[in-house]
Amino acid sequence: MNKAELVAQIKKKESYLCVGLDTDINKIPAHLRDSDDPIFEFNKQIIDATHQYCVAYKPNIAFYEALGTKGWESLQRTLDYIPKDIFTIADAKRGDIGNTSKLYAKAFFETMNFDSITVAPYMGVDSVTPFLEFHDKWVILLAHTSNPGSHDFQLIENGEEKALYETVIEKSRQWATAEHLMFVVGATQAERIGHIRSLAPDNFFLVPGVGAQGGDLEAVSKEGMNNECGLLVNSSRGIIYAGSDEDFARAAGMAASNLQAEMKGYLEKYM
Amino acid sequence: MNKAELVAQIKKKESYLCVGLDTDINKIPAHLRDSDDPIFEFNKQIIDATHQYCVAYKPNIAFYEALGTKGWESLQRTLDYIPKDIFTIADAKRGDIGNTSKLYAKAFFETMNFDSITVAPYMGVDSVTPFLEFHDKWVILLAHTSNPGSHDFQLIENGEEKALYETVIEKSRQWATAEHLMFVVGATQAERIGHIRSLAPDNFFLVPGVGAQGGDLEAVSKEGMNNECGLLVNSSRGIIYAGSDEDFARAAGMAASNLQAEMKGYLEKYM
Repeated sequence: MNKAELVAQIKKKESYLCVGLDTDINKIPAHLRDSDDPIFEFNKQIIDATHQYCVAYKPNIAFYEALGTKGWESLQRTLDYIPKDIFTIADAKRGDIGNTSKLYAKAFFETMNFDSITVAPYMGVDSVTPFLEFHDKWVILLAHTSNPGSHDFQLIENGEEKALYETVIEKSRQWATAEHLMFVVGATQAERIGHIRSLAPDNFFLVPGVGAQGGDLEAVSKEGMNNECGLLVNSSRGIIYAGSDEDFARAAGMAASNLQAEMKGYLEKYM
Repeated sequence: MNKAELVAQIKKKESYLCVGLDTDINKIPAHLRDSDDPIFEFNKQIIDATHQYCVAYKPNIAFYEALGTKGWESLQRTLDYIPKDIFTIADAKRGDIGNTSKLYAKAFFETMNFDSITVAPYMGVDSVTPFLEFHDKWVILLAHTSNPGSHDFQLIENGEEKALYETVIEKSRQWATAEHLMFVVGATQAERIGHIRSLAPDNFFLVPGVGAQGGDLEAVSKEGMNNECGLLVNSSRGIIYAGSDEDFARAAGMAASNLQAEMKGYLEKYM
């Protein structure tokens, strides 16, 4: 999916919601556990209930990998089930030397058919660029995350008071246009999102951390939006575990619908 | 496997060789491609031919992941086939927020049964520590890699002229002892390995980049060794693709044997 198509979907659905499919076998409703593929069955019903309110799905790859080959099968079935007009994100945080990143790119963009993958920047240019050689595929590079450990290295300043995350944004924008490169920007400090928007005016930001992790959707939207929206705001647990019984899918749909309604207002106000 | 057991294996085999199982379906000998599981068949014969000369195997996870669920099956069979007294490294370069890293740890340490996993440090403490909570399991943290992109971020100095890779080593050594934490240290600049040894006297270093990537084994050994050896030096392509026909395993065995003989000399000279 290219940027124009993504922006068109956002406008059409009046939503920049990404639903995080962090599907945990221990958290899905009991009545699903006896099905052949409980993870897929859960995801399928979540997708049925939420797809009209969101523009992206983001399976967290660790949750599938932890289940071994069966988990990868559930992931592939989930990916195949997602409607084709919805953007897909492999939240995999990969990144390795050139020939290895090339294989990860092949795994997620060809063997599977994700639109995008999250990538860790530590190994630099040749760990990132192999993901950029695919038509209409995207790198979503970790810039400033919202977890406690984000302070350990991402905020270290060089001699000119430029933080590592700022250098990551500055350098990587030389490797790819905003047609192929997004950034992961945590939601916990909205004022920093405004600053990051000034560093990367045209790039989309994937913003985790609204909801369970404590970010404020209005502040994020106000500070982070550009004239194409430029945001994909993720909610995982707040949607997929909104209910815990046989009614779980309806509860997830309602949670997604509520977020979409809120987002509609911010699109009118801030885009 | 704990550190004492690893050191005992190094002394017994007079080797600190790690064989990288970067097994590429397009590079394995033609006569294997018709077998049920060509990747496993190749690895099995490589292991048979090299296990007496090495103390560790390091499957590069991307090569298996690129093949989908079939690749994960080949990986599991390979792991099950490796003799139990040989240290196993999942070269996966994972790292994510706490609850996600916990699942990656579960995937590689429990679902599979690797001794160790390579981890990227960008997200900081809570992305690393979940891997440290397993008995006799290891984190091998990226510190200073040997790829071209290593210069992009790893060498950035803070206001006190401390490079990012130095901060990574310094901080992470507060998170775990040398019983659970190794560092990835590239082989291309041996003098830097000496410096890193001064920063982390007791930690093992996993050193890729000898051979195909151009590092010098004697210089690395001289600068990097401590009194427990403290090194695992990896060779992938130089061993597993030493031959390309039906004789490939014998060629791999000879390449491993040659490296072991060289290492034996350096252990006598520098340990």
